Amino acid sequence: MEELGLRRPQAALLDLARTALQEDVGRGDVTSLLTIAEETQARARFVAREALVVSGLKVARAVFFEAGGEEKLSFAALTSEGVRVPVGAVLAEIEGLARPILAAERVSLNLLMHLSGIATLTNRYVEAVDGTGVRIVDTRKTTPGLRLAEKAAVRVGGSMNHRFGLDDGILIKDNHLALIGDVAEAVRRVRTKAPHLLKIEVEVESLEALKAALLAGVDAVLLDNMSPEEVHRCVELVRKERPGTLVEVSGGIDLWNIRSYAEAGPDLISVGALTHSASSVDISLEVEPC
Amino acid sequence: MEELGLRRPQAALLDLARTALQEDVGRGDVTSLLTIAEETQARARFVAREALVVSGLKVARAVFFEAGGEEKLSFAALTSEGVRVPVGAVLAEIEGLARPILAAERVSLNLLMHLSGIATLTNRYVEAVDGTGVRIVDTRKTTPGLRLAEKAAVRVGGSMNHRFGLDDGILIKDNHLALIGDVAEAVRRVRTKAPHLLKIEVEVESLEALKAALLAGVDAVLLDNMSPEEVHRCVELVRKERPGTLVEVSGGIDLWNIRSYAEAGPDLISVGALTHSASSVDISLEVEPC
Amino acid sequence: MEELGLRRPQAALLDLARTALQEDVGRGDVTSLLTIAEETQARARFVAREALVVSGLKVARAVFFEAGGEEKLSFAALTSEGVRVPVGAVLAEIEGLARPILAAERVSLNLLMHLSGIATLTNRYVEAVDGTGVRIVDTRKTTPGLRLAEKAAVRVGGSMNHRFGLDDGILIKDNHLALIGDVAEAVRRVRTKAPHLLKIEVEVESLEALKAALLAGVDAVLLDNMSPEEVHRCVELVRKERPGTLVEVSGGIDLWNIRSYAEAGPDLISVGALTHSASSVDISLEVEPC
Amino acid sequence: MEELGLRRPQAALLDLARTALQEDVGRGDVTSLLTIAEETQARARFVAREALVVSGLKVARAVFFEAGGEEKLSFAALTSEGVRVPVGAVLAEIEGLARPILAAERVSLNLLMHLSGIATLTNRYVEAVDGTGVRIVDTRKTTPGLRLAEKAAVRVGGSMNHRFGLDDGILIKDNHLALIGDVAEAVRRVRTKAPHLLKIEVEVESLEALKAALLAGVDAVLLDNMSPEEVHRCVELVRKERPGTLVEVSGGIDLWNIRSYAEAGPDLISVGALTHSASSVDISLEVEPC
Amino acid sequence: MEELGLRRPQAALLDLARTALQEDVGRGDVTSLLTIAEETQARARFVAREALVVSGLKVARAVFFEAGGEEKLSFAALTSEGVRVPVGAVLAEIEGLARPILAAERVSLNLLMHLSGIATLTNRYVEAVDGTGVRIVDTRKTTPGLRLAEKAAVRVGGSMNHRFGLDDGILIKDNHLALIGDVAEAVRRVRTKAPHLLKIEVEVESLEALKAALLAGVDAVLLDNMSPEEVHRCVELVRKERPGTLVEVSGGIDLWNIRSYAEAGPDLISVGALTHSASSVDISLEVEPC
Amino acid sequence: MEELGLRRPQAALLDLARTALQEDVGRGDVTSLLTIAEETQARARFVAREALVVSGLKVARAVFFEAGGEEKLSFAALTSEGVRVPVGAVLAEIEGLARPILAAERVSLNLLMHLSGIATLTNRYVEAVDGTGVRIVDTRKTTPGLRLAEKAAVRVGGSMNHRFGLDDGILIKDNHLALIGDVAEAVRRVRTKAPHLLKIEVEVESLEALKAALLAGVDAVLLDNMSPEEVHRCVELVRKERPGTLVEVSGGIDLWNIRSYAEAGPDLISVGALTHSASSVDISLEVEPC
Repeated sequence: MEELGLRRPQAALLDLARTALQEDVGRGDVTSLLTIAEETQARARFVAREALVVSGLKVARAVFFEAGGEEKLSFAALTSEGVRVPVGAVLAEIEGLARPILAAERVSLNLLMHLSGIATLTNRYVEAVDGTGVRIVDTRKTTPGLRLAEKAAVRVGGSMNHRFGLDDGILIKDNHLALIGDVAEAVRRVRTKAPHLLKIEVEVESLEALKAALLAGVDAVLLDNMSPEEVHRCVELVRKERPGTLVEVSGGIDLWNIRSYAEAGPDLISVGALTHSASSVDISLEVEPC
Repeated sequence: MEELGLRRPQAALLDLARTALQEDVGRGDVTSLLTIAEETQARARFVAREALVVSGLKVARAVFFEAGGEEKLSFAALTSEGVRVPVGAVLAEIEGLARPILAAERVSLNLLMHLSGIATLTNRYVEAVDGTGVRIVDTRKTTPGLRLAEKAAVRVGGSMNHRFGLDDGILIKDNHLALIGDVAEAVRRVRTKAPHLLKIEVEVESLEALKAALLAGVDAVLLDNMSPEEVHRCVELVRKERPGTLVEVSGGIDLWNIRSYAEAGPDLISVGALTHSASSVDISLEVEPC
Repeated sequence: MEELGLRRPQAALLDLARTALQEDVGRGDVTSLLTIAEETQARARFVAREALVVSGLKVARAVFFEAGGEEKLSFAALTSEGVRVPVGAVLAEIEGLARPILAAERVSLNLLMHLSGIATLTNRYVEAVDGTGVRIVDTRKTTPGLRLAEKAAVRVGGSMNHRFGLDDGILIKDNHLALIGDVAEAVRRVRTKAPHLLKIEVEVESLEALKAALLAGVDAVLLDNMSPEEVHRCVELVRKERPGTLVEVSGGIDLWNIRSYAEAGPDLISVGALTHSASSVDISLEVEPC
Repeated sequence: MEELGLRRPQAALLDLARTALQEDVGRGDVTSLLTIAEETQARARFVAREALVVSGLKVARAVFFEAGGEEKLSFAALTSEGVRVPVGAVLAEIEGLARPILAAERVSLNLLMHLSGIATLTNRYVEAVDGTGVRIVDTRKTTPGLRLAEKAAVRVGGSMNHRFGLDDGILIKDNHLALIGDVAEAVRRVRTKAPHLLKIEVEVESLEALKAALLAGVDAVLLDNMSPEEVHRCVELVRKERPGTLVEVSGGIDLWNIRSYAEAGPDLISVGALTHSASSVDISLEVEPC
Repeated sequence: MEELGLRRPQAALLDLARTALQEDVGRGDVTSLLTIAEETQARARFVAREALVVSGLKVARAVFFEAGGEEKLSFAALTSEGVRVPVGAVLAEIEGLARPILAAERVSLNLLMHLSGIATLTNRYVEAVDGTGVRIVDTRKTTPGLRLAEKAAVRVGGSMNHRFGLDDGILIKDNHLALIGDVAEAVRRVRTKAPHLLKIEVEVESLEALKAALLAGVDAVLLDNMSPEEVHRCVELVRKERPGTLVEVSGGIDLWNIRSYAEAGPDLISVGALTHSASSVDISLEVEPC
Repeated sequence: MEELGLRRPQAALLDLARTALQEDVGRGDVTSLLTIAEETQARARFVAREALVVSGLKVARAVFFEAGGEEKLSFAALTSEGVRVPVGAVLAEIEGLARPILAAERVSLNLLMHLSGIATLTNRYVEAVDGTGVRIVDTRKTTPGLRLAEKAAVRVGGSMNHRFGLDDGILIKDNHLALIGDVAEAVRRVRTKAPHLLKIEVEVESLEALKAALLAGVDAVLLDNMSPEEVHRCVELVRKERPGTLVEVSGGIDLWNIRSYAEAGPDLISVGALTHSASSVDISLEVEPC
């Protein structure tokens, strides 16, 4: 559960909940307001309709907190972030006034289904490289507005996070090099001016580029769009020439080929699909009077 | 192209762009600021790396507009929303200062890839029911913060939109009925107090429930989790008992079974997967000096 | 009291209260801060200084909630929304620290007096058509920033609400027709693309226009600026040609002529004056030490 | 025209316009988006449907500016703030894309009608005291969110403004005195700590209270709820005892009795009705293709 | 303690705390989140590392309130605003979860050290004029975003506040006069239109300018950049020609010459350095497990 | 000039300008609005009233940009960021409408004087270590709300930036260690979970602690509150035991002792005073008609 806390200040959770509720509720939940009496109480349960790895409980809780306003809704998590649950598992139970529960239903489901989808998919990637010692990391290919939540779901699924944004790590990519021309010069510029707690990584697409990067003294290299064999040759070079340098692999990696890449021996494999192509998992909210 | 305008006031586009840029850029794009000179000019092209239906051009344009600030970046769309393009197609071209182009790269790609993914998937659903006269509609199962953009992508893909939120349509669902008990009473309450331009729809899960709903005089019924055969029987009942009533189908519908549902004769089929489970399509931004 | 809840999510109430307090308090209530000790306690009562229909209690409560901050002020409503009270009636009582009570005084009064003014005026209109079966509805002629609150006051006064905005109902008005030219074409465009839970209404200013609208198959017609006799003829036509179609009347209607219009038999009469020309009713806040 | 600028920074105008548009347009102007082509151009004119004193042109202009976004709408004012115009006068003309013009129609009208209503009513009060040398001032009884705009309309109508909030003037009222007990002590506390550019005014309801206030050395007195005769006696006392002290009158003043109060000789008469009870004046927006 | 409340509505305190925390915490306090368990409790103490006059306790408390979120942190002030404490004094004690305490550490210290720095410096100025009867006042030379907090610290240090902004006092300065040319005309324009509770002050840089200002009938004069002797001559003129007029002195005043200025007899001396050049005082936060 | 761009996205500049203007202008610049005609044009010049290193030109420009609104003010910088100018130097020239120029005067001066004060002080520190090869860096002891601007001023003055917040670098400080107890364990936890582009620094206060940190394999050490001699011993140990490790020194460093610390051979010296105790430098804005 602790995992969830990583880089997710509570204020950000509530802001996300508020924005999402505004978007869905608009000027009011007409149906519920007209059909359900103000004082009606209800109990609701999130039920997994397929096997899944749970993520998003704190966000869902924030949605009910926001929706409930002064009339607090109780929210009891019945499992924890990162737990793999079977079909039919009850993830959490909410009790309180029916109207705010119904107003929060769709928004909380959208978040839980999306984030658990990411954790579930991530988990499959993690299992695919089990035993190789390679770490799976995410990318910045996240849904605008949901980066912190999605990156938390990735951790919950067992992976690590790459940069959170353009400001907490230096990664010189192909587009930079297309404009600068020279790795050595790029690294030099960065080294003299960047805050000293940020490492420097360079994207390379060939063995020659790798050699130049190592010569420039980078902290990490990103091998992009290579075959497992090419990765293997690059890893050997790095281990020999500049041992401490981290090796990350990315590009065209999926559940079917990731193990070959992992066995090529890099430190990290980054997978955009964890966040940009995870399907929602199926969860429902069952409401009953109480 | 006109489609895009539907329910997407420009201010909302710019707000989305601003939020997404803040999330990604944070305190600044350190790599570019340290490696690329302030006055460096660049040209960039969005290139489709798979066949796809284009959506998100206006959003992408807004991202570059925001990133460019006073120093305007030019953005030329080379195709239109809803066009199906082959691998290698250039979707748009940007010119101007290199730094803002690089700062906008990831955010604009994240949006274009996500929204084109939705349009592309939607298009496959639309084709699957071709000739049946049934309309595909989306749901409220959208990504929090992106509802308007995703619903625009659905239209671009050839479908129609269902409700935009809890306030622009009345849909009495199973959870309401669990709390009220009685369809007739629910409909009565709504009819006497709701704004007169909102229609009333009721979710039904059986023939009996359908009969009660028709008797209550609703404008539309939502047949949830039925087989195509059950849908067919329901449609026949509706056409006979209360002809003008709209029939919508939902629940468990995918690309493989949707045609059977369509042939059962409903007016609309709503598909949550259009927005909650579309994978991103692959698009890259290629930058070069100029 | 339940009425109040309709379409007024609590967060919106607090936002309104905060904005209004900021506007009035600015950088601080200098007079109270300099003359009243921080720990001074007070009791305050809202007293009706004329007969009125109460509306705005929840908004007023939100103002004291916001002003009180951590040091909660107690707020006890002594009557309910929609009740007609005589001169001298005490509407609510507040207790707590004197400074926040004084800071909230003017803002809460401004809202209570304005909203009760609307409820009181609305009530007079409702009584004027008593027994005719016609419903009074409001319009979008509301005060910018207060639409939800004013529309709640209208309901409290006994009327119903028309559209809440440009997005929750389709109303093709004279200005649209001036640009399109053809009702039939306008209705056709709307019908194929609009969300299926929104009804379509068309404004008509003559019998010919009415016929065209009915032919186009609209859900409702708005008869604008007609005499009661013309309305009567139109109603007869509608009832005969397309029975289910709703008939709304607007334009030049006041307390003196509304009964004639009501007796002409329409379903709804919309009255802009309910919100754009209601005078505030007189209420005072009496503060005493405690 | 210059008048309008007073205390109305442009940013505040645009914020008001944006808020009001969001409230009305919501998720989009469905009717216009579906019936009017994106490229359709239109011309629109604000036409006075009754004689009125114009106010709100800058606000209306801001609404069209916001609605137009990148595709600027031209806005030409054909008259000026504070001008009295006859029925049929054209106040301003707008040209540009039809959709944003239609989206801005209701909001701009709501503001123009409301603010011109205030200017028109204010003007009647000003004329009622013509020649007496008394100044009419407004109060803080304004519509939440619109204070600056309404106070500008009051100036446009020929009156002056009282305090803009609780922070730009010191006014010790009955509720303060109920808690402090002693005018002299209250004034003393204020004088030693308040910023030296703020004057001190005290509300008095009797001749005795007036004497105490004058003794305490206040800069202004507010005579509340007195008859014209009582006001006269108070004015005489002030002129004799402490000549430079300003005398303001308030409470129960309307168009029928204001002249009697003015002839009693005070410096200022404050009238809450200017802002809290002005009816909207009738203005229409006529749109045509171009 | 009461002083602090002046013009510092609680909502503003929390907004300041939230903004400052966002700026410092960004996407999360990585170090603490990774090293400290979620449930770890801690106790922390603010300790003065030099003698100082305390200011900023309420702001610091707001920072911990915001950082703590639902899991409230206890905050006990052990001294009061305005108290002069020796090295080693404990200003306040916080208890609760370690993570939010650590997240709030730097921000709360930055505010406490800055505001106590202002109060401490102000206090030295106040002592420098002790016994002369002159009041020290601050200026608008404050740090953007912190004006209210800094002006509260000035009061806490024993001085009074000048204007809080351009809207709560009228001060005609050299730049106005450079554009208008004529003091008399400027004062006349202001007097006929300004809210009657705002006083009028004019900046003068010579005896001639002073005479013109007094003739125009201003409420206060600001003698800028004069020597103590010049100030003395001006004060004598004012006392003789227009006794009630306030005399303020500013320009080039520091701790070494302020007494000479004070002895020249003005009512007020305004010192920009109080806010624009106060160094932070040294305070530390000592954290221990509990 | 390029420097300024680092980590200062333009949107942030405009937000800062807007906030600062709102704080100062409030409900309007009464003095200017009443004394200066709307159409009056003016020219203004920022003049250095002491020798200083320029910083803040882009922020000042943003203030005039915001204040000018639609009626653009021209802003011509006559020098560049980081230039040392003599008394009397003109830093920039503005032309346009007088009212917005006057409204922006104080805010732009407050920012320019504050930021140039930081650049000027920083520059003195940089000169003090000239030739030693040591880098001066700033800290997180910045003014809440101004961190990005102040850190830009530090760069302009010739130093480098340390962390921008708690999220872009890992620094295990005394308070963390007080709660964890064990450096080795802390470093281990961080290394397995932190994003791989963030380096790890540990604060040490003794030679023993330093040894433990080196053993744990950190990327950098922060020597806190040591004498130059102790620093020297520590540096020798680091260079011998773990050469690549960065050595940073902090605590009790001022202009008088910094050279001794620099000569002890660390890589970096961090100085809180750069931002928390820099006095404003003196700059004026001279306005004239044109």
